[in-house]
Amino acid sequence: MIPMKQQVRVLGIDDSPFKFGKGTALVVGALVRIPNYLEGIMRTEVTIDGLDSTEKLVEMISRSRYRDQIRLIMTDGIALAGFNLMDISSLHARLGIPVLSVTRDKPDLDTMKAALSKHFEDWERRYALVQKLPLRRIPTGHKPLFASGVGLDWKEFEELVQQSTVRGAVPEPLRVAHLIAAAMATGESYGRP
Amino acid sequence: MIPMKQQVRVLGIDDSPFKFGKGTALVVGALVRIPNYLEGIMRTEVTIDGLDSTEKLVEMISRSRYRDQIRLIMTDGIALAGFNLMDISSLHARLGIPVLSVTRDKPDLDTMKAALSKHFEDWERRYALVQKLPLRRIPTGHKPLFASGVGLDWKEFEELVQQSTVRGAVPEPLRVAHLIAAAMATGESYGRP
Repeated sequence: MIPMKQQVRVLGIDDSPFKFGKGTALVVGALVRIPNYLEGIMRTEVTIDGLDSTEKLVEMISRSRYRDQIRLIMTDGIALAGFNLMDISSLHARLGIPVLSVTRDKPDLDTMKAALSKHFEDWERRYALVQKLPLRRIPTGHKPLFASGVGLDWKEFEELVQQSTVRGAVPEPLRVAHLIAAAMATGESYGRP
Repeated sequence: MIPMKQQVRVLGIDDSPFKFGKGTALVVGALVRIPNYLEGIMRTEVTIDGLDSTEKLVEMISRSRYRDQIRLIMTDGIALAGFNLMDISSLHARLGIPVLSVTRDKPDLDTMKAALSKHFEDWERRYALVQKLPLRRIPTGHKPLFASGVGLDWKEFEELVQQSTVRGAVPEPLRVAHLIAAAMATGESYGRP
């Protein structure tokens, strides 16, 4: 049970839309004091369809002045910049911060496997990351979210998701990281309804 | 009197730190539904020490899907990217949206005049923009703010400043625009205490 009065900070991570052919995509971290006070922002770049997302996130968060204040890292799905899959267990182990990967649409493992095996020689390594952690359903006032997490009890993950959600189903740290990353890449972004 | 329940949206504008010699600086617009729900973000670039800031803001806001929902444009001071002075009367006239320029430190007109006349051949044109509107004091729970505005009664400006402030003295639209612009330029940014 996480008391609401505590100053709980959640870092939401999302990537920007990118152009194929460009080498990297922008990744934004939005540090939110729950429920929705934006306290800090960080950025990095990851290789499109590369496998450096875990490393780049460890670097970005390690050098942050907020490093020791982050109660939870919340990522939008488990891939950044195309199929640059994160290893969220490794992220947790290296930073000592719980990590929750959250998605609005239930991942289709067969479709993912087919896409990976078609496009990547190292597809088995990537698919292993997709399968590494079980997926659980998180109820919201709207459609449920699907999530994989490491470092907290499931009950605590659910509480942090609910406490950081203001409107709709998407927690503020992810919604704000998305808004920033999208606007920087495209010139303007807006909240999803 | 602006009813609190109305969905009032304020666009905060701030620029990023920049390197001298680089041609432009990033300018970010953060659209906030008061008190502090971030609804959208827009961006543009303005020339360092140029005089295109008014034009670039008109373009950015005109093409925005939020254009008709903005109750107030709030700018951080009256210069972007060095001495790229905004003409906030012109901004108001061209967009039909009230504009309030807000600063935490009372501008020192003599220092400003000396700096402009030293560095710019067209310093009189720039200094005219500095002097164009009277400066008024806005009380906050902390140090007062100094502001120049066009398009609303002063009482309404004060209400919008107070209704969009959550912590400290800086209204959320400006605080969030600053956080985003600074993080994009430097890699990380954090809220001012």
